[in-house]
Parts: sequence; structure tokens; C-alpha cells
Amino acid sequence: MSFLSCASLALCLLAPVQGKPLDAGQALAKKGLAEQQAHAMLRELTEGVGHRLAGSEGAEKAVGWGETTMRTLGFQNVRRQPCPVPHWVRGDTEKAEILGGPSLTLCALGNSAATPKGGLTAEVIEVKSLQEAEKLGARARGKILFFNRPFDPTFVRTMSAYGAAGDQRFSGPALAAKLGAVASLSRSLTEAHDDVPHTGTTRFENTRIPAAALSLVAADRLSAALKANPALQVKMELNCETLPDGVSANVIGEIVGTEKPKEVIVMGGHLDSWDKGTGAHDDGAGCVLAIEALRLIKDLGWRPKRTIRVVLWMNEEISGTGSEAYADWAKASGERHVAGIESDSGGFAPRGFSTSLTDAKARKVRSWLPALALVEADRLKTGGGGGADVAPLGAMGTALFGLEVESQRYFDYHHSTKDTLDKVHPRELELGAISVAILAWLISENGL
Amino acid sequence: MSFLSCASLALCLLAPVQGKPLDAGQALAKKGLAEQQAHAMLRELTEGVGHRLAGSEGAEKAVGWGETTMRTLGFQNVRRQPCPVPHWVRGDTEKAEILGGPSLTLCALGNSAATPKGGLTAEVIEVKSLQEAEKLGARARGKILFFNRPFDPTFVRTMSAYGAAGDQRFSGPALAAKLGAVASLSRSLTEAHDDVPHTGTTRFENTRIPAAALSLVAADRLSAALKANPALQVKMELNCETLPDGVSANVIGEIVGTEKPKEVIVMGGHLDSWDKGTGAHDDGAGCVLAIEALRLIKDLGWRPKRTIRVVLWMNEEISGTGSEAYADWAKASGERHVAGIESDSGGFAPRGFSTSLTDAKARKVRSWLPALALVEADRLKTGGGGGADVAPLGAMGTALFGLEVESQRYFDYHHSTKDTLDKVHPRELELGAISVAILAWLISENGL
Repeated sequence: MSFLSCASLALCLLAPVQGKPLDAGQALAKKGLAEQQAHAMLRELTEGVGHRLAGSEGAEKAVGWGETTMRTLGFQNVRRQPCPVPHWVRGDTEKAEILGGPSLTLCALGNSAATPKGGLTAEVIEVKSLQEAEKLGARARGKILFFNRPFDPTFVRTMSAYGAAGDQRFSGPALAAKLGAVASLSRSLTEAHDDVPHTGTTRFENTRIPAAALSLVAADRLSAALKANPALQVKMELNCETLPDGVSANVIGEIVGTEKPKEVIVMGGHLDSWDKGTGAHDDGAGCVLAIEALRLIKDLGWRPKRTIRVVLWMNEEISGTGSEAYADWAKASGERHVAGIESDSGGFAPRGFSTSLTDAKARKVRSWLPALALVEADRLKTGGGGGADVAPLGAMGTALFGLEVESQRYFDYHHSTKDTLDKVHPRELELGAISVAILAWLISENGL
Repeated sequence: MSFLSCASLALCLLAPVQGKPLDAGQALAKKGLAEQQAHAMLRELTEGVGHRLAGSEGAEKAVGWGETTMRTLGFQNVRRQPCPVPHWVRGDTEKAEILGGPSLTLCALGNSAATPKGGLTAEVIEVKSLQEAEKLGARARGKILFFNRPFDPTFVRTMSAYGAAGDQRFSGPALAAKLGAVASLSRSLTEAHDDVPHTGTTRFENTRIPAAALSLVAADRLSAALKANPALQVKMELNCETLPDGVSANVIGEIVGTEKPKEVIVMGGHLDSWDKGTGAHDDGAGCVLAIEALRLIKDLGWRPKRTIRVVLWMNEEISGTGSEAYADWAKASGERHVAGIESDSGGFAPRGFSTSLTDAKARKVRSWLPALALVEADRLKTGGGGGADVAPLGAMGTALFGLEVESQRYFDYHHSTKDTLDKVHPRELELGAISVAILAWLISENGL
């Protein structure tokens, strides 16, 4: 685009300010974009702390970072809230090959068992669904089950493709174990056609078996090789292990409400990440944008009527124990949790919010959309949810909100070595923080 | 984000299909996302052809590529439409330094004069606006004027920041020449704080002087050095040159309407690019997404009632002669140009359209927004424009539309070596193509 075609656009500034929500939105947007602190915080968390799988040393460092950061910013009642955490360790050996042929790039799934030292070798059966695997019955015994249904590219929102393909990673290995398979391989949950595998948790019932994700290049290579030779064998070796459970913590900070301190708006993301990459989008972004949202409100000198609280939840990725610990505490706290706002879809440009509120109950929120439109975050999807970490609050009648962001690139990076700071754009991240700040502030001032 | 939190989202598929616009939108979205051909075309144009500044060999290759591509896809009446083009050549020397100090990374602006061979050396006066420069009067004589007003980060849409800062690049050098300055330096029009300069056109009245853009790192370095020593000198050398004008061409292809072939919907982007990077976002994206939009319609076997035409305009960047040539031809053609849809804001995820239609006249378009919402491109900004290339059609009563996309990253790359294919996401680009296809198809079937 040349200059002339743009010069006239300079006149299309922020929409005219009318009424209080717009005033608040404009002040938050202006301050946020002028200062853009969210990305600097994300640098500390991702490049300073590093990855932070629940149970790891990194996770404990992250807890310390969260406390220090919120204290330094002058938040009130900064504290740790203990929660149990699993302690699964990836180990240093993750490799596979088509026996006598090329290698296959993979990584262990969280909760995977190790292979015998030196690896295991077995024939492979490729399936496209759990149903197809189930039908194998005794034929699966002693084999490696290979779940290879791709992401459906025709979903507009990539989250839907993840939902539609994810049972292979999440439940496939347990089914493979039940059928007597010796191991499970699954196609990485991504549309990015490269040689980078994407990890994630899987859940076993009784027996754990070795379970890994193949890169898309490896999955396609294996699939093609199986077409040529269905009797081929794959050799794979993993030395991950599951250590005894430990204790970690959620990190909490807040600004206490001036009029209704016992009415609380909670906002946050999860502090743990996978051990591939540094969890920049998943979910460092969700953590720092909640902290930044509260910082903006505080540094504007505003005092909310209701308490606005940041919660950095521990262990979302493996078993949600941080979320449970917070919800259990909240139920006994005597506080009324008005709203729970979660950000766990990456640090991309915001587009709006999903909410558990029905259309009929969302009228007040809808009246605030012009303020959210200032940062182009005014889509409201009613009758949905907020995210895994705020979900348990729903039982207390808390209205749940999830920040929705531009979704096309998220699963290119998700749970892989590619989820690093350079994929997060400072302005996009900041606009997410501003969106959450606007919503939290308007709820604190007006209720729901 | 873990899997459990997403599984329920798999149920949130495309909205239910009702009525014809939604049917059309859903068919185009499904086919586009399943096939994703736009990015492959963009690879041919950016990595196959390369950069393509008007007047250059690359531009002529691009014209050939456009013709061949549209012929191969089976479009009708594929043709070249001649237009005059300037022929400015960058040369191979672009360098500057603070005399006796560090270097300053810069690049010549389009239309810049060369320095004397061996360079020129002069004192520098920093200003923040044309007004401030104007006030210098005779003090500017013999100096290098340095326009250093930064992008205002508080604009939500970066296009507005470009509009607000752009006069320095576009008009600064001519003003410097008028004041008797020996050269002009301007801060690159970007918020990306790195050492990459961003070029672009500048316009002189009578005298041309050497005019270049500094990277943000260089601009800040020079500004800091001037504070310490206002008498410092900068040495700079450019060997760009302006050759005699040449002739190039717009490239046109279409599907002729079955019922109203003389009523035309034009859609496209500009085929020329700057000679830094390969013009992937600016505006290879606009070209391929228009071609892809027509391909989707054609390959679905649909025959539009009105003619849908792709135009790849030549020389948007320097002087808009392709746009003029098309508009002049259109006025004499006996056709009625119903709509002109331009894409020249990059290949990012679509958010909607700006249009020259007023609110009152946009009712029909507004009724189609549920179809555009399928790809989250349902923002409609009335009372605006379409873009530089369709603008001249406005005088014929043509309704103008501009594809609006997520804007935060655009000026990080714009007119620089960073504007390359890897910055364009295949799905985001395809969603833009689908958006344009939906709008063009609905106009062709329903009029405006």
C-alpha cells in the first residue's frame, strides 16, 4: 500500500467517546498501547524462567516470578495457593525409525511410559479413529497403534479442528493399552506440515504404555511406508518417567474493591507450560495479559468497586489441580465470584469473548461492546464457556468468559518447540490485555 | 490450552446454513480451506518472480506470470492493458555514517536523486514535522533535514499511524529541497524497532535531492548523537537513478456474466512491489487472493449473473498509472462498473470491508454479513473508501470496497526486506480470498 491511499485513514481515529464504558475503554487502550508492558513481562517469563511443566524446577521458578512481579507492581494480597502436582519427566531419549529405514521425529506425550531400555520394535497398525481401533480387537495385541486422522482444515476456527482430532492423542493411548498394544503413536495435533512434533497430555486408565506424537512429516512418511509394506516394523525408544507427586502453587494478586470487596472478578491464565518451547502463547500470554490488565487499571489510579483478582493457575496442562484448588478455596471463602475471565487461546489479536451467559443474561455485557470495539474485540459468543481453569467456578453461579483471539496460527506452535516469544506480537498481546482490562473493569463497576 | 477445554468447541462448527448467501458462503469457505491454493500462487509470485518494482524486469515477469496463471485457471478474456511506468533504479550503493562515528542503516526512497559519487557530507537538523521544517527557512540551506516523528503507537489500527506519520516520507524531501537542503532523511514508517529501513515513494516538485529512510535503530542513534553534538556531520551515498519512462501493463481476466455481462464487479490488488523483500503482503497477497476468489467461484461450477473480473494493477507504489489506465478504459468501455473490491492491506486474517457506500445504501450488503461472518469477516465500515487502485472508479458511481485485515503486523514488514512469503499464513490468506469471493459473488447475483 502506498502512502496516498492511507493518508485519509489517519482521520479514522478511535470512535468518538460517549458515556462511561467508552471513556474507560479509551483510557485503557491509550495507556496500554503507549506503554506495551505485556510483551516485556512475557520475555521475563519465557526467556528468563523458560519452560515450566508442572512438577519441574521451571514451574517453581515461575511461581516465584509471578509473586515477585505482582508484588513489584503493587498488587494487594499477593500470595501462593498450594496445590498438588504430578511429576512426569520427559527424559533425554526420544527416537524412532522405520526398521531398516528412515527415522521418524516424535516426542513423548505427557504421562507416557518409557519403552524398555534400548527401545521396542513392533509392527504398526494405522487407524483414523478410536472406533476403528476398537474394532481391531485382538489384532492390536503386541502392535504399535498409529492414530493418523489429520486436522480438518475446513474448520474456520482451528480450535474446532483441535477438538475434532484431539481424542486420538487424549484417549488413543489408553485404548491402545486396553487392546494390548505395546505402544501408541499419534499424528501431531496441528496443520503445520513440518518435522516438529507437538506434545500434550494423554490419560491412561490402568496400564501405561509408551505414547508419542509424530511430526506431520513423520506421520505421512510412516503412512506411506505402511501402504508399501504393511508388515514393516517401527523401533522406538522413550525414557520418560513418572516420579512421585509434588506440591506447587497457584499465584494470586488483586486490587481490593472499595464498595463490594467480597464480590470478585477473577482473571488469568495458566502458569505451567509444556517442556517444549517456552509456552509463550500457551499460556504465558494468558498470564501476562491478566497481570497487565490489572496493572493498567491500577496505574490509571482507578479503584474498582469490586475486587479484581489475577490468578495464575498451576498445572492446567496435565491434570488441572490448580484450577481445582482455587475453586475449592473459592467455595469456602465467603466471597461471591461474579465473573471468571480466562485467556488460554494464545496471545494473538483479540476478537472478543465467549461467555457462559445466555443471550438473555448477556444484555449488560452487550451494552459494553462499543467499548470493546475500540480494540476490535467486540464479538460475544453466548452460551459457551470460559476455559478449563475457570470452569469449576461455574458451579457457584460465576459467569465465565474466555478471551477469543485470532486463531489461525495457534496450532502451528502449540505444545511444540516453536511456542516461543518471537511468535507473540507485542501489539497483539497488549490489545488482549486491554480487552480483558475493559471487561474486568466494567464488571467491577456495574456488576453483571 | 489442554485438550479437555477444547473438546466441547468441536461442536461449534460453522453456523447453520439458511438462505442463499449463507449457502454460498459456506460452499466457498469449505472449498477454499480444503484446497488453500492462494499461498501456493503467492509462492510463485514472490519466490518464482521475485520483487517487481514498476519499470523493472521483475515487473515484466510478473505481468507474464499473471497472464499465464489466469489462462491456466481457465479465466476468460485474459489480457494485458498497457500503461506507462516510471523507471527508477535503486543502484547498489546505499550507505551513511555519522562522520567519524557509527554507520546508519538506510535505503533510498523511490524517486530519490543520487548523491555525488563518493557521497555528500553535511550537518543535520532534526525536525518532528513538516511545519517545524518550514519554520527553519534559510537555516535549512546546505543541511540534511532529518524528519524523525515516530509512529504513534496508540492508534489501534496501524494504518492510521502510517497515515499520521507518512507525510514525512511522502512530502518531507520535497520540502527539504524547496528549503535548499542537500538531502533528506526520514524515520522509517514502522513501529518495528530494528535495523531494517523501510522504503516507499516520495514526490518532488522541481528539484530532486537524495532522500532516504533510516531504520529505527539508525534514527534513534542519529537523534541521540545530535543531542550530544548538534554540529555533527553525516556522510551519505546513494547511486539510484531515474531512467526514461517505459510501458508496462495491468493484467486482466474474468468470468463473463450470464445475465448482465456488461455489469462488472472488479476485484484485485497491485502487481508491482517495492524492490526490498518480495512484496508478499504488499501486494502479492492482494493479487493472489483475487485470483483465488475467482478460481473458487469457477471451480465450484458457478456462473455469475454479472461479470466478475480480476485486475492486477501495475505501478500502484510509485505513481498509480495502472489504476488510471484501467479507469480511463472503464469510462469508455460501455460497461457499468457495479463494484470495485481492492485488497492492499496485507494477507492477514480478514476482519471485514470498508466501503464507499453510505449506511443508507449499504443495507443489501449488511444483509449478507452473516455469510461473511462464517469467515469472521463481517465488519463493515461505511462511508470510507476501497483503496488507491479502485478509487478512480468512484467517479463513475462504482461502489468501492476494501478488504480489511488484522493490521498489527503489517508495518513491521511493509516496504522492507522483511516483506517475504514466510510472513504470510496460508490459512489467513485463504480466508481473505474466501471473503472477497463471497462479496463478489453476492454482488454478482444480487446487484447492489
